[in-house]
Amino acid sequence: MSEQARAFVPGHVTGFFTVDRADDPTETGSRGGGLALSDGVSVTVEPAAETAVTLDGERVEMAAVERVLEALRVSARVTAETPLPLGAGFGVSGATALGTALAANAAFDRALSYNELVTIAHGAEVQAGTGLGDVVGQARGGVPLRLEPGAPRHNYVDAIPARARVEYHTLGELSTADVVGGDTATLTRAGERALSMVVEDPTLDTFTRASRQFSREAELLTEDVGRVVRDVTGAGGDAAMAMLGETVFSFGTGLTDAGYDASVCEVYPPGATVENGPP
Amino acid sequence: MSEQARAFVPGHVTGFFTVDRADDPTETGSRGGGLALSDGVSVTVEPAAETAVTLDGERVEMAAVERVLEALRVSARVTAETPLPLGAGFGVSGATALGTALAANAAFDRALSYNELVTIAHGAEVQAGTGLGDVVGQARGGVPLRLEPGAPRHNYVDAIPARARVEYHTLGELSTADVVGGDTATLTRAGERALSMVVEDPTLDTFTRASRQFSREAELLTEDVGRVVRDVTGAGGDAAMAMLGETVFSFGTGLTDAGYDASVCEVYPPGATVENGPP
Repeated sequence: MSEQARAFVPGHVTGFFTVDRADDPTETGSRGGGLALSDGVSVTVEPAAETAVTLDGERVEMAAVERVLEALRVSARVTAETPLPLGAGFGVSGATALGTALAANAAFDRALSYNELVTIAHGAEVQAGTGLGDVVGQARGGVPLRLEPGAPRHNYVDAIPARARVEYHTLGELSTADVVGGDTATLTRAGERALSMVVEDPTLDTFTRASRQFSREAELLTEDVGRVVRDVTGAGGDAAMAMLGETVFSFGTGLTDAGYDASVCEVYPPGATVENGPP
Repeated sequence: MSEQARAFVPGHVTGFFTVDRADDPTETGSRGGGLALSDGVSVTVEPAAETAVTLDGERVEMAAVERVLEALRVSARVTAETPLPLGAGFGVSGATALGTALAANAAFDRALSYNELVTIAHGAEVQAGTGLGDVVGQARGGVPLRLEPGAPRHNYVDAIPARARVEYHTLGELSTADVVGGDTATLTRAGERALSMVVEDPTLDTFTRASRQFSREAELLTEDVGRVVRDVTGAGGDAAMAMLGETVFSFGTGLTDAGYDASVCEVYPPGATVENGPP
């Protein structure tokens, strides 16, 4: 057991997705497409007598993070910091779970592999009901296309080979658990159609178009988000909704051109990384 | 067809490897472990009437690069620049092939996915006889462990979750084609033993120890490299040989502590990336 360790995990905006349930949480997951973002979550882990998790200075309960620490058989102080809003479709809970796995592995010399840690964090998210595909997308980085669901041994992940400036604007929260816990047949069919579009033409333009189509077909597009998307397309840009939050994303300067005071970041090619390894 | 495009591909030092041949070049490859390095190859591709490849300003013949352009059905001027020595175990030919695939895809709007481009570059390297595992390691980034050989649809890649400062010192060249073209049964058994050690304990310390053991068991350790490795261990550090070149690598300050004027870089977490995507 050593000192504290730190990891950085990119935020992850999902454009479209399916829900694929199996008996085993590591086979459960989602297919779909997303963006790993340079705005992410920094997670510091240090050994402690009792587990405590803080996010931006506030004590929080994050079931996925607690499950990760239990799987590693450690108790620790977990300190997470992020510029991203919670519950708005950026995968903050998945990022915190994955960052905790990577940093705890280093802090406690657990000697697990990258894929083993991703599997632990993915399984914890699935069992907590807070996400199905964020952890896998965050582990890949870039513009991940999840072609087969589940953790590393089961899934298959490709990517769109592109980088871009990304803008986002958040109007409010949506509950992932409410959506993925309900009837997901319609959503999954819409997700499969969107994924087919992007596999056929893996470019950022098609990614945005497929995401916009998905949000309508899956009946997840809210009135407020739809209005912002129309503002962006009206200004000559292109935008879509981030799943699952009342958030709009666009490439380039789409949102600012439409007059929104958007947050700006970029596609982040590396996946989640431990920050201070030996030596 | 648009303008020029650029990609960056990390150098890749192989610590240990197997040779796994199949009828299909995309199933042929190698298992093993390596380091993706922040010292890499920048590749610029622009449309041209006739294909021409330069490396650090000199016109070169690189069969793998030409095969990549043929697979994409384009002719182009390819300009590669790198601080890494050629033929010294850094995967410069694989990096140039993969960078050409990524940049040509962007410059000619070919709309292929990341894995499709990796598969094209891997197959080109295999058919050119210049490498078996570099392209896959360079596509992954970090400290890749290639657990199953071949291109993305066939392989399985894990990683050691760590970052580190890397030093290297090159004494001369070795021919990859000479080694992997000969009898590789002894080498492959040694590679499997090294890989098992690292899968059991995926840490950088074990990576170096397994690499050192591999170079002896595969009978690839040269006298000059062996002397440098002993100098480093004598100075309290740890080092091993880069496959396939007369190159020694160490983590931290191993080589400089032993008095060598080593080159310094670090583990590079992102895989190969296109530099200028839209918009």
